[in-house]
Amino acid sequence: MKEIVVQKFGGTSLADTDKIKKVADAVIKEKELGNDVVVAVSAMGHTTDYLVKLAKEINPNPSAREMDMLLSTGEGVSIALLTMAIQAKGYNAVSLNAMQIGIITEDVHQKARIIDIKTDKLKKNIKAENIIVVAGFQGITEDGEITTLGRGGSDTSAVALAAALKASRCDIYTDVEGVYTTDPRIVPNASKLENISYEEMLELARVGANVLHPRSVETAKQFNVPLRVRSTFNLDNLGTLIIGAKNMEIYKPVTGVAADLSQVRIVICDVPDVPGNAARLFGALAKENISVDMIIQSYARTVSNTNDIAFTIDKADVVRARSVLDKIKTDLSAKSIQVDENIAKISIVGAGMVDRPGIAATMFETIADLGVNIKMISTSEIKISCIVDKEDASRSLKILHEVFDLGSDEIADVKGDLPEL
Amino acid sequence: MKEIVVQKFGGTSLADTDKIKKVADAVIKEKELGNDVVVAVSAMGHTTDYLVKLAKEINPNPSAREMDMLLSTGEGVSIALLTMAIQAKGYNAVSLNAMQIGIITEDVHQKARIIDIKTDKLKKNIKAENIIVVAGFQGITEDGEITTLGRGGSDTSAVALAAALKASRCDIYTDVEGVYTTDPRIVPNASKLENISYEEMLELARVGANVLHPRSVETAKQFNVPLRVRSTFNLDNLGTLIIGAKNMEIYKPVTGVAADLSQVRIVICDVPDVPGNAARLFGALAKENISVDMIIQSYARTVSNTNDIAFTIDKADVVRARSVLDKIKTDLSAKSIQVDENIAKISIVGAGMVDRPGIAATMFETIADLGVNIKMISTSEIKISCIVDKEDASRSLKILHEVFDLGSDEIADVKGDLPEL
Repeated sequence: MKEIVVQKFGGTSLADTDKIKKVADAVIKEKELGNDVVVAVSAMGHTTDYLVKLAKEINPNPSAREMDMLLSTGEGVSIALLTMAIQAKGYNAVSLNAMQIGIITEDVHQKARIIDIKTDKLKKNIKAENIIVVAGFQGITEDGEITTLGRGGSDTSAVALAAALKASRCDIYTDVEGVYTTDPRIVPNASKLENISYEEMLELARVGANVLHPRSVETAKQFNVPLRVRSTFNLDNLGTLIIGAKNMEIYKPVTGVAADLSQVRIVICDVPDVPGNAARLFGALAKENISVDMIIQSYARTVSNTNDIAFTIDKADVVRARSVLDKIKTDLSAKSIQVDENIAKISIVGAGMVDRPGIAATMFETIADLGVNIKMISTSEIKISCIVDKEDASRSLKILHEVFDLGSDEIADVKGDLPEL
Repeated sequence: MKEIVVQKFGGTSLADTDKIKKVADAVIKEKELGNDVVVAVSAMGHTTDYLVKLAKEINPNPSAREMDMLLSTGEGVSIALLTMAIQAKGYNAVSLNAMQIGIITEDVHQKARIIDIKTDKLKKNIKAENIIVVAGFQGITEDGEITTLGRGGSDTSAVALAAALKASRCDIYTDVEGVYTTDPRIVPNASKLENISYEEMLELARVGANVLHPRSVETAKQFNVPLRVRSTFNLDNLGTLIIGAKNMEIYKPVTGVAADLSQVRIVICDVPDVPGNAARLFGALAKENISVDMIIQSYARTVSNTNDIAFTIDKADVVRARSVLDKIKTDLSAKSIQVDENIAKISIVGAGMVDRPGIAATMFETIADLGVNIKMISTSEIKISCIVDKEDASRSLKILHEVFDLGSDEIADVKGDLPEL
């Protein structure tokens, strides 16, 4: 029996009709290798932004259900156009939306999770030698309501399709050549990784390597779907393979270095050291659906019997967090609240770290030697993150990349604007 | 129990977000009258043209199935936006597409006919006091394939919904105030009709009054759904009610006069008068799906034993018709083929005609008195059509409107470009 390969193409790869024709080439190339091909796609380029703009003109606070009805039309357009492009090149293809397939999700709008994917229609079309083009990002509830999957949704659709069809691989096509040891726009000799474990990719994804959403990596890990990140515009390059760690040889303790500028540090000063204060604080934030990343509570000062609670959140949540904090400040009897937007999170990631002592120390020493002050530290088994001032981020990243010997002899060919660093 | 009213709004009424808000007002006004409201909508303004353009860029000959997948997204956008607009004004509303409702059609793409509409979901939402916004123009097959209904599709969706829900009325909102005795852009004192029978409306629709597609009128007639044609932009005007003739008082033998410039006359000259020639000719045209309107076969000339066959077809079919005729010309042993594009069809329509002799004679005399030559004539029980030269169309229309006493004392307030006449 032939192998099934799932491919995923995002909005940038489908921005206009010329690009859609190029995507058709990538699909056909995989088919020509003798595989059955199932393709998951996002909406074209700026379609989603345009639809959101129309909605806001009509209703500043549109219902989540109707937003899902609206946004799901975006993939409806791209599946039909890509299918036409494949057919124009003489191959059999068919488009299917989430309702036609039965991509079943929870009964939640705008951020539903996939529960099940029916495979009857998919298998029937694979048997008929059709290339199948599936609407990503969308699902339906058991009751026939249309849902969308939220951030990272199309990648997750692709991985879930691969899991349901027991595909041999899920290829995520994007505008970069693969996963790099760090951002090549900052460190020009960053190396492209041949492969990386799910766990490392998860940590890299969380600390700001914007190649894959952690959610899709988690799904791939759970169902053991080999994931490949590769470029739509360079089909000869196989990109980076993300698989279970046991299949890999690990040559270096550190696999990648990343900087994340999307976080803000909040410090609640002089909170009386009474039981339940931390729970009250983070409970209130969780209730507003604000994710907290790093948390540090200082030791209680013996004289005043108060301590400081510092934590980081996403920039996008600052306004909502402030309103939560203003409300519970009196409850906590806190003296003041400081918000520091001038921070960067620098992280090193590597599955090899766990067996090698001294990696953390090397990181802290390296940063200290630059005269850079470390404001917060957090660690996991395969990741160490430090908060530094934003203006220190770039040089910290560069020196860590060098110290942990991640550079390649080549200069990466990467386009795109330099990040804010 | 409350009455159900179905409303239909076309692309022009939904061209931008401001217009969508106006449509929401029209929907809410009906709801405030104490009725349950179900709304069928088309795609916004030029959406369909834009999608067709994208498709043609990708594939000059796109598959009908994928065109349906593509075009059906258009109504997906407008149902969500209109629902948001209604919700913004504080009313409960829900959008439903054809797949969610179960608008079942034949298994034919781009011109499917509706077989059945499931009413469970509709009735559940009516019971919950929701205004329901339904995607017109689209359907699904029993097998879950997406279809579209072709020309006049959204009007037909609305009428079929009204029939399925036993609605008390189906209001077709458009950019004119109703059905007129003739085109008010040509005859400024044309009267708006208070009511008209299905049969008359059918004839008027077929002879060029572009207010309603005959297909929707036929469906309304079949299920006895009272239809109202009215303006989206003047809600105080109730427009024209189209109902069964038996409910009407008929004051005048002629209800309306129309000119149709979309036809072309073809004459096949000197066809030998042998059995089967006409069948061969019109069979060949039918096989190419070319509709023939008027047909006149002259008496066989006794000397040559040949006759001429003249007929009219739609302008859009001329190229295809020529290629059919070129092929069978030798078969028919015809001498020559003439194509006359310089014609207009002038028709008078009226259910009262059947009881009043002399209407046809009055029409012919009136036209003859102008010195206008009548090239072809066809009649039905409630319609008489004459083919004249295009340049004679306007004055023929005006004089017939006057002779049959159709004018009002008011000048119709009609916008839009003057037609080609």
